Amino acid sequence: MMNVLLIGAGAVGTYFCGRLAQGGAKVAVVARGDYEVVKERGYHIRSVAGDFDFHPAAVLKDSADYQETPDYVIAATKVLPELDLVGMLRPVIRSPKTVIVLIQNGIDIEKTVRAAFPDNELLSTIAYIGVSRPARGEVLHQGSGNLKTGVYPSGISESAKRLAAAFGAGGVKCELCEDIRFVRWYKLLWNLPFNPVSVLAGRVDTRTMTDRAELEKLCWSLMLETIAVANACGVALSEKDARSQMEYTREFPAYKTSMLQDFEAGRELEVEAILGNAVRLAHQNNVPVPKMEACYALLKSVNLHRS
Amino acid sequence: MMNVLLIGAGAVGTYFCGRLAQGGAKVAVVARGDYEVVKERGYHIRSVAGDFDFHPAAVLKDSADYQETPDYVIAATKVLPELDLVGMLRPVIRSPKTVIVLIQNGIDIEKTVRAAFPDNELLSTIAYIGVSRPARGEVLHQGSGNLKTGVYPSGISESAKRLAAAFGAGGVKCELCEDIRFVRWYKLLWNLPFNPVSVLAGRVDTRTMTDRAELEKLCWSLMLETIAVANACGVALSEKDARSQMEYTREFPAYKTSMLQDFEAGRELEVEAILGNAVRLAHQNNVPVPKMEACYALLKSVNLHRS
Repeated sequence: MMNVLLIGAGAVGTYFCGRLAQGGAKVAVVARGDYEVVKERGYHIRSVAGDFDFHPAAVLKDSADYQETPDYVIAATKVLPELDLVGMLRPVIRSPKTVIVLIQNGIDIEKTVRAAFPDNELLSTIAYIGVSRPARGEVLHQGSGNLKTGVYPSGISESAKRLAAAFGAGGVKCELCEDIRFVRWYKLLWNLPFNPVSVLAGRVDTRTMTDRAELEKLCWSLMLETIAVANACGVALSEKDARSQMEYTREFPAYKTSMLQDFEAGRELEVEAILGNAVRLAHQNNVPVPKMEACYALLKSVNLHRS
Repeated sequence: MMNVLLIGAGAVGTYFCGRLAQGGAKVAVVARGDYEVVKERGYHIRSVAGDFDFHPAAVLKDSADYQETPDYVIAATKVLPELDLVGMLRPVIRSPKTVIVLIQNGIDIEKTVRAAFPDNELLSTIAYIGVSRPARGEVLHQGSGNLKTGVYPSGISESAKRLAAAFGAGGVKCELCEDIRFVRWYKLLWNLPFNPVSVLAGRVDTRTMTDRAELEKLCWSLMLETIAVANACGVALSEKDARSQMEYTREFPAYKTSMLQDFEAGRELEVEAILGNAVRLAHQNNVPVPKMEACYALLKSVNLHRS
């Protein structure tokens, strides 16, 4: 039986680990804010694909309380500067056989974990899902629900295949990607313009960003800057990718980006994973990114002053 | 006796015309929102230099009701796209002897008035004052209170001297400027970065914008772009001017920009006079202004979505 520990039991992590448990994996969870509720009655997941309950094999207050050696540790925390993911992983990474799985947003987010645990395989994973946590112990799944995964920095391994199969058994399509870095940049090509602009332009939805000429132009410019940085980093994003992201967004019903949802809920924004890392990579590679810099400065400040 | 008509009786216009009246001018006012109150009891001006009342020689609901031929028409409206200043001026400009005085923010704001009344002298005027309108018929004057004026596009005329003297008689320092266009750009060098960023960066004061490294850098970049546009338009702004503006701002006590005050009060923002015209001049002159464009797109959207 596959032994899994989840660190970062937000909406995304809980949903996918609930599916893993449905597929037969033994899943323990480090719960924080909702420890008491989950310890008592597990998670209730309201899903477009049918509601279900997820009773973790163990509910822990701290990763240090975990006594086993997991096959996979899934880290699904947000990427925030003050969140010490390495410190949370340290107590449970007891063997090089444990595979670390990051289900996180942004680019260049694997480095610190890679450096701290050089002997453990690292699966970089990206989630495509509409999911939120309306109350303690509850998850609301509203759309999609797929994953893409691959070995960091590249390749497909036996452990990746085993994990994908375990997700498949739980009903989750988990695609194996030879070049997960490209996939991450491709997702950033959407996230980098639309997440910050949705907040900075006065809380606007995707329809407003594609319909209002000056916002569409700004998003497009941010996409072009993203492509330039990606290319400088050896990632073959192209304008064609940007066009298809833009068309997809135009055709999709209007919706609020995850960053706008975070902002309106008063939660911290993933400024660094989405914008900061891209700006830093641009500077390291001497790529001019004036619009990215402007949005980064404004968003960093907004993040500090959110009410 | 000097005959003056004020159009745009906001805080700025009312304050300065109150001073003109104190100096002995005969001042009529077109009042809108506070017509009833002002008609009955005039304006009460609470001022750091001593409170005073301003009883206009006439209070009108519409400029078309004005029957005289004024020596000076002072237009102190905000510069907003839907505000038809030319239409408001048309009924009262009956003679080429009437001098039009614009006390307004921004650059390139004289053009439409110049084109509509080519035979009238146009005095472009800039106010330096901390003033607001806390209630109908009331003005609160908290600091400064000087003017700079000059013939548009350049020069000093007899009418300019006469107006400056009339302000002087009312206790207002009104400096005559040979090159009022430069003065306007110099003020824009401050307004263009600090006004938009104060709103976009999460409602921050001047201290925050100069203290927080990334915001100070963004403001500085916007200043450099402003200088480049000014230079392309033949206005000799330089980095030295930007440095002195930045130092002045650093040393000044923290305060909220006028645009942030407008935003917090739910009032329309002067996006076009401050940013839009500068961006358009940049495009006409092929000057790259990527950060200005980003802020313009965001601010335009914020202005539409302000609550």
